[in-house]
Amino acid sequence: MSYQFDDLKKSCPTEWRDYIEHSFVQQLGDATLATEAFQHYLKQDYLFLIQFARAFALAAYKSPTLADLKQAKEGLEAIVDTELDLHISYCNEWGISEAELAELPEARATLAYTRYVLDTGNRGDLLDLHVALSPCMVGYGEIANWLNSRSTTIRGDSNPYDAWIAMYESDDFQEAMQAEVQWLNERLAEVSPARFEQLSRVFRDATRLEIDFWNMGLNLSE
Amino acid sequence: MSYQFDDLKKSCPTEWRDYIEHSFVQQLGDATLATEAFQHYLKQDYLFLIQFARAFALAAYKSPTLADLKQAKEGLEAIVDTELDLHISYCNEWGISEAELAELPEARATLAYTRYVLDTGNRGDLLDLHVALSPCMVGYGEIANWLNSRSTTIRGDSNPYDAWIAMYESDDFQEAMQAEVQWLNERLAEVSPARFEQLSRVFRDATRLEIDFWNMGLNLSE
Amino acid sequence: MSYQFDDLKKSCPTEWRDYIEHSFVQQLGDATLATEAFQHYLKQDYLFLIQFARAFALAAYKSPTLADLKQAKEGLEAIVDTELDLHISYCNEWGISEAELAELPEARATLAYTRYVLDTGNRGDLLDLHVALSPCMVGYGEIANWLNSRSTTIRGDSNPYDAWIAMYESDDFQEAMQAEVQWLNERLAEVSPARFEQLSRVFRDATRLEIDFWNMGLNLSE
Amino acid sequence: MSYQFDDLKKSCPTEWRDYIEHSFVQQLGDATLATEAFQHYLKQDYLFLIQFARAFALAAYKSPTLADLKQAKEGLEAIVDTELDLHISYCNEWGISEAELAELPEARATLAYTRYVLDTGNRGDLLDLHVALSPCMVGYGEIANWLNSRSTTIRGDSNPYDAWIAMYESDDFQEAMQAEVQWLNERLAEVSPARFEQLSRVFRDATRLEIDFWNMGLNLSE
Repeated sequence: MSYQFDDLKKSCPTEWRDYIEHSFVQQLGDATLATEAFQHYLKQDYLFLIQFARAFALAAYKSPTLADLKQAKEGLEAIVDTELDLHISYCNEWGISEAELAELPEARATLAYTRYVLDTGNRGDLLDLHVALSPCMVGYGEIANWLNSRSTTIRGDSNPYDAWIAMYESDDFQEAMQAEVQWLNERLAEVSPARFEQLSRVFRDATRLEIDFWNMGLNLSE
Repeated sequence: MSYQFDDLKKSCPTEWRDYIEHSFVQQLGDATLATEAFQHYLKQDYLFLIQFARAFALAAYKSPTLADLKQAKEGLEAIVDTELDLHISYCNEWGISEAELAELPEARATLAYTRYVLDTGNRGDLLDLHVALSPCMVGYGEIANWLNSRSTTIRGDSNPYDAWIAMYESDDFQEAMQAEVQWLNERLAEVSPARFEQLSRVFRDATRLEIDFWNMGLNLSE
Repeated sequence: MSYQFDDLKKSCPTEWRDYIEHSFVQQLGDATLATEAFQHYLKQDYLFLIQFARAFALAAYKSPTLADLKQAKEGLEAIVDTELDLHISYCNEWGISEAELAELPEARATLAYTRYVLDTGNRGDLLDLHVALSPCMVGYGEIANWLNSRSTTIRGDSNPYDAWIAMYESDDFQEAMQAEVQWLNERLAEVSPARFEQLSRVFRDATRLEIDFWNMGLNLSE
Repeated sequence: MSYQFDDLKKSCPTEWRDYIEHSFVQQLGDATLATEAFQHYLKQDYLFLIQFARAFALAAYKSPTLADLKQAKEGLEAIVDTELDLHISYCNEWGISEAELAELPEARATLAYTRYVLDTGNRGDLLDLHVALSPCMVGYGEIANWLNSRSTTIRGDSNPYDAWIAMYESDDFQEAMQAEVQWLNERLAEVSPARFEQLSRVFRDATRLEIDFWNMGLNLSE
């Protein structure tokens, strides 16, 4: 009975598929997604990133070893030093100014997922925190791969969302995704069935809140 | 420039009114609320209470004085020793068994508000935590009073929701509400404008997430 | 490879014995302990209790189940509603007023053990927190039993510290101790060797800080 | 009534002086400090740094603004990317291998100060955390300056501890110290007398635990 990350996905197959193959994702792949929906998503994703930086900071605080602390620091650094700026530039290309981003209120779906991750991390240990983060850290890579596996996905200049797919299919992101899966596999291999049950609940709830994040984009909900 | 709890309400008058005078509340007062909506709300309110117990526990942990610690302990006690059981009995009257409550998944709106409160408490200090709790601790009392101020509110046996109103208009609840307002007033009197601005944001977000909790009831959303 | 609480003790036998059979404890059993040393210990133990209340509050916050939450609440309650008052009365008998207790600064050994417990709880999960608390929750019962097993221990009116021994040999305390050991055994039975290694370090460090707490009493250190 | 960092020092002048002008510091300046004492201090200072990295991570998690988050991230980065390696090299020069550092148990004085800082940060807000950190972040710069102000301090090759003084008198460290004082001054300017009283207690306790850290070096205590 040695668990793996795949067992988490298998514990909530419907939710996982609803997340990976969400209408938002499909429309993005088909180049039919409304510009406003994508812009709304992009804006909230910026606020999401700031909270994710807090989650990596929490991971650093909670780290039982220096190796874990260093890894968490690198995640925090990647967001604060690189991803936030990339995000600001990308938003700019979509007509969203940095000033607008700075004033933006968080949508409820953003509050929901990010605060769930942070409280789960504080309540449990570093593994709880990583499991709560994994639908994002692993899911976005799977989404890019799933889009590429569909014949209807449009790539290149005829899809305004091509750069988004490119980001998550990139070697950098795919390697980070694999590293996260491996980190999780090493730890899940050691957990008891009761503990796995607990972690499955965290994983399912986090996945449900990711689905809501896509819904928020489609519905322009605040 | 000495702030009071009322200033928090004045900082987001639209959100506060949308919460206090929500359709869910109106329909409950008018005895027109769908049974399913109320049952759905009741079930989630049970899960909400458990997270609120965690919030009072966090308040006890964070207390800077023994007096604050004792007050937080009483809040935790009230929930765990009394309110959860009352809630289970009340749910029973509405055809919801304790076994059903024990298996229930948290709706997203429940996750959203409760985890926002808990993360806000961990991120800031005891005052942040209380401000995040106040839309619930003070708002429910104001809702009962507002319902009683309306000519269209139906009281007595002809309103199946009469007991709900009775609970929040009760002396016990109204006194707890006043004690909370006083606790907040004493601390808000000392904060700087920049700090008040921060706390206003917490209050507004918490109020928005309470609105969503009513929406969840009306829409039966999970 | 199913671990038990005894395995934690076996992982640091020297430290555990130095704690249980500390000179402070021996002198207390032999009725030779200096009054000032006991008074100094008693005063700091009061401040220690307040921090322990915070630790049980943290345990309630971190609880993964309602049963754990209720158990932690009972621990918090026992301290705040009963033990603090008992402690104040007992201090009074030793010439220490409640006013003096309220103004007392925490000695470094008090800060050290209590804050180690609290940070360990925040850093890890509920099991980490319980392991850090166990030298106190289990150790005091073992100390009473060890004192009673020695032929040189003086009981009754000729030992001014008799009431102290009586408190920790009482059925109430011994049952609480057994309940704690059982709680730990159930969880330790499921941990991996790597996790047990981590928990052993926590247990040893907590035991070392308890030894320092006795030293503080003997040396009247602040 | 606008408070400044200096008011924290003035609230516990004896403790502050006992820390800045500690025998360990004097002997280090006079080149009379026992090699073993310095080595013991150096080893524990390495473990201290790792916990300080956790404290900056906690500061990042708790940050109310993106600017605070970035600042905390830089502090974390400075420790993990630079200071730990510098420390390892410096330890190497004093005959302490990296392997030895990796296996080292934390001394009680190390546990005491670092866990006090971390719990104070979790219990309160970002300002509490910074105040608890300030005896280290500001004090070491003041110590270097105080040593340089004494006629008996020996500088250059005839003092084996010259490099230590050089590190803390360096422009880099002195600027970081000034930045910290300024950050604190901006926030202390806004606090109420009751809040200042609370923060003074944190500052005094943190300073007492720094004194103990020097004592640990002198006494080789574990």
